[in-house]
Amino acid sequence: MTVDYGAQGFTDILVSLDGGVAVVTLNRPKQRNTFAGTMPQEIVTVFDLLDRDDRVRVVVLTANPAAPAFCSGADLNNGWKSMFAHSPVETEGLRAHRDTGGKVTMAIFRCRKITIAAVNGHAVGVGVTGFQLPCDFRFVWAGAKLALPFVRRGISAEAGSSYLLPRLLGHAKATALLLTGGTFTPDSPLLQGLYHQILPTRDAVFPAALAFAQDLAANTSQTAIASTKALLWHGADSIEEQHILESRVLAELASSGDAAEGALAFKERRPVRFVDILGKNLTDWVPWWRPVDVTYHRTKL
Amino acid sequence: MTVDYGAQGFTDILVSLDGGVAVVTLNRPKQRNTFAGTMPQEIVTVFDLLDRDDRVRVVVLTANPAAPAFCSGADLNNGWKSMFAHSPVETEGLRAHRDTGGKVTMAIFRCRKITIAAVNGHAVGVGVTGFQLPCDFRFVWAGAKLALPFVRRGISAEAGSSYLLPRLLGHAKATALLLTGGTFTPDSPLLQGLYHQILPTRDAVFPAALAFAQDLAANTSQTAIASTKALLWHGADSIEEQHILESRVLAELASSGDAAEGALAFKERRPVRFVDILGKNLTDWVPWWRPVDVTYHRTKL
Amino acid sequence: MTVDYGAQGFTDILVSLDGGVAVVTLNRPKQRNTFAGTMPQEIVTVFDLLDRDDRVRVVVLTANPAAPAFCSGADLNNGWKSMFAHSPVETEGLRAHRDTGGKVTMAIFRCRKITIAAVNGHAVGVGVTGFQLPCDFRFVWAGAKLALPFVRRGISAEAGSSYLLPRLLGHAKATALLLTGGTFTPDSPLLQGLYHQILPTRDAVFPAALAFAQDLAANTSQTAIASTKALLWHGADSIEEQHILESRVLAELASSGDAAEGALAFKERRPVRFVDILGKNLTDWVPWWRPVDVTYHRTKL
Repeated sequence: MTVDYGAQGFTDILVSLDGGVAVVTLNRPKQRNTFAGTMPQEIVTVFDLLDRDDRVRVVVLTANPAAPAFCSGADLNNGWKSMFAHSPVETEGLRAHRDTGGKVTMAIFRCRKITIAAVNGHAVGVGVTGFQLPCDFRFVWAGAKLALPFVRRGISAEAGSSYLLPRLLGHAKATALLLTGGTFTPDSPLLQGLYHQILPTRDAVFPAALAFAQDLAANTSQTAIASTKALLWHGADSIEEQHILESRVLAELASSGDAAEGALAFKERRPVRFVDILGKNLTDWVPWWRPVDVTYHRTKL
Repeated sequence: MTVDYGAQGFTDILVSLDGGVAVVTLNRPKQRNTFAGTMPQEIVTVFDLLDRDDRVRVVVLTANPAAPAFCSGADLNNGWKSMFAHSPVETEGLRAHRDTGGKVTMAIFRCRKITIAAVNGHAVGVGVTGFQLPCDFRFVWAGAKLALPFVRRGISAEAGSSYLLPRLLGHAKATALLLTGGTFTPDSPLLQGLYHQILPTRDAVFPAALAFAQDLAANTSQTAIASTKALLWHGADSIEEQHILESRVLAELASSGDAAEGALAFKERRPVRFVDILGKNLTDWVPWWRPVDVTYHRTKL
Repeated sequence: MTVDYGAQGFTDILVSLDGGVAVVTLNRPKQRNTFAGTMPQEIVTVFDLLDRDDRVRVVVLTANPAAPAFCSGADLNNGWKSMFAHSPVETEGLRAHRDTGGKVTMAIFRCRKITIAAVNGHAVGVGVTGFQLPCDFRFVWAGAKLALPFVRRGISAEAGSSYLLPRLLGHAKATALLLTGGTFTPDSPLLQGLYHQILPTRDAVFPAALAFAQDLAANTSQTAIASTKALLWHGADSIEEQHILESRVLAELASSGDAAEGALAFKERRPVRFVDILGKNLTDWVPWWRPVDVTYHRTKL
């Protein structure tokens, strides 16, 4: 499947695609790239499309550098309750609420391609949790202020952060990051391990992430990446069961064109030319896990 | 609910409360603060009370500096079997044993307020595992000797350490800490991430922890803290289920007084004045998890 | 139980035993210590034996220094499909595949003694995942090149690495290590915490690991080590259930000869002399978990 991104009518994001690398740019500079308007829904839509577009191998998520921040988080002018506006909550009550940050997190998390956040500015709240944590890699400006102020604003952890932070960094760091409600810079010991590369200037972040993306797009197998991501995040409860899963994935991949090409290119000491795509070559027993429907189904007609 | 701590008859600990910060002091200086006497049971009792006392926002656990150690661990003079004395083990056998260190760990772990260990001296065995690991934050003296000698004394990991260490720091560090049976100083790479702050002198530990506690007590929401702690430690098995949990917690909190105050204070650029309390304002579907009864129920009448 | 290792007919490994420390040496120097020939099966066999040999307290896995690498990984000359040769896959199809690297990982993982990888050379693929990750400790040469090239060769994570890496180091590092398909040196931030000690020369690795092994063999209890390893890797889903497990293990150990000796030696300020062995003194309710049979059972007669 291929997608015409220009035809999607996006207003708050920009999308480009070149050589297997898609670039998604948060583009609300006049609103300080707040997490508002149609931006959240556009991110959900575009990551669902990028997941299925067979041309895409790597996605870089960055911000228009004209904005004063990578993402300024939620717009608090009307208070937290405003997050319920125009949602089923109005007619169905609080149980109908689905955290918008969590929707964004899951759309990125579900993307079977390599995802990279290029954090070229400050980030607040969901600008950290929703746009950065679900990515496979994070590049950041050394001067970026990274704020997780939830408990100092009267609300709890959101956007999957209470799931992702303990798994990404361990509970000691996750607890400290979330319970202090603090603002951190990338060199904080509490963030050690979260950022793949820290760049000295705002301008240096995107080129570094792009070069990294281009190498991975050219030299990694789409099916191998998707399978490895699935094994990492949808693994079994015991090493024995994981061994069965890994063996099954490996058996199919080892018989694939990409595996033959990978071994041959190694033998011939030349660059690989992987051509297998998820839409055709991914084993048909993925997913092996039970998908969970998180949609709120209205009870009133 | 409020508690009169002076009326509890504690003999091995001191308890004070000021401005939302409770301080619990291990106070067996003549016995080198060994984990013996009534100290363990008093810690269990006081953390159960602090959990429910609506005035308490942060708990600091420290030691009387007159003691030569923060906690010298178990008293080994009568061997490990002495841990069964005056317990159901005498009449019901070994299966009736409940590790006293584990009881302490769980009492601190269950406390829904922010918990901070101010480790102003050496710590041995349960002095690390029972008094430090279940806390949200740990402050420590740079010169503290931290010993985990279990396998060198013929016994296995206790006080929840085999559960908490892998989650706090990962299995690589947890394995190294427990299988070497070693003694470490806070700058050990194996402890990297465990201590929030390392102070140069014994005397500097408590003031640093107290100042940190006072900031959190003044500026964080009790309901937001309790909800975030519950999400971190009682999370779901998939990110989708966690999204549902987070959304439900967030919906109730976003409608709360503390959330309104948090957004308003931000808008007005002034300090917050949170007033919501767990006894009245915590959503009534917490806990969402299945509590486990660990009490031993005697079979003989 | 004791084993005559010389009678096992091993051709690709060497095995020695002295003072409770077994040394297993990968010994295919002419084939660059590739993961081929009978080496994988010999490793599975020997770790099963070392697990049950009551004389063994610590196992060091290292390589013949005459080889140019600790382990050069799979032999890619015939492509990945060659991994199916002489296996049930030929008659039963891909679902009959069991990853050989995973078999090695699980044999080491199941060993109830302390296991140490002494990585005295470069390591590729399964030379990292199968021979290093399942060990309790890893010693490494500072100049070692450690390659995880799977996704650049068209295949997915194997040898239990998708299970072990997230648990050992957290998902942030595990994702970066596996999705880049990169080659790392031990000082890489992505490997921080994985190696217990980094040595300046190839020659320094084994002696350092051996001295570490000898200390642990002399001063730790076999039953305490086996119990602690079981608690760390076969723990419960909640801290309360883990408390029950820990209490049960601790009750039996605290009544054991090794625990009495551990307390007495401490009191008398002398070295311990532990004599309890797994074959006789390990509590009879280990394992408490459900063992998983991963063998492929042929459907055709």
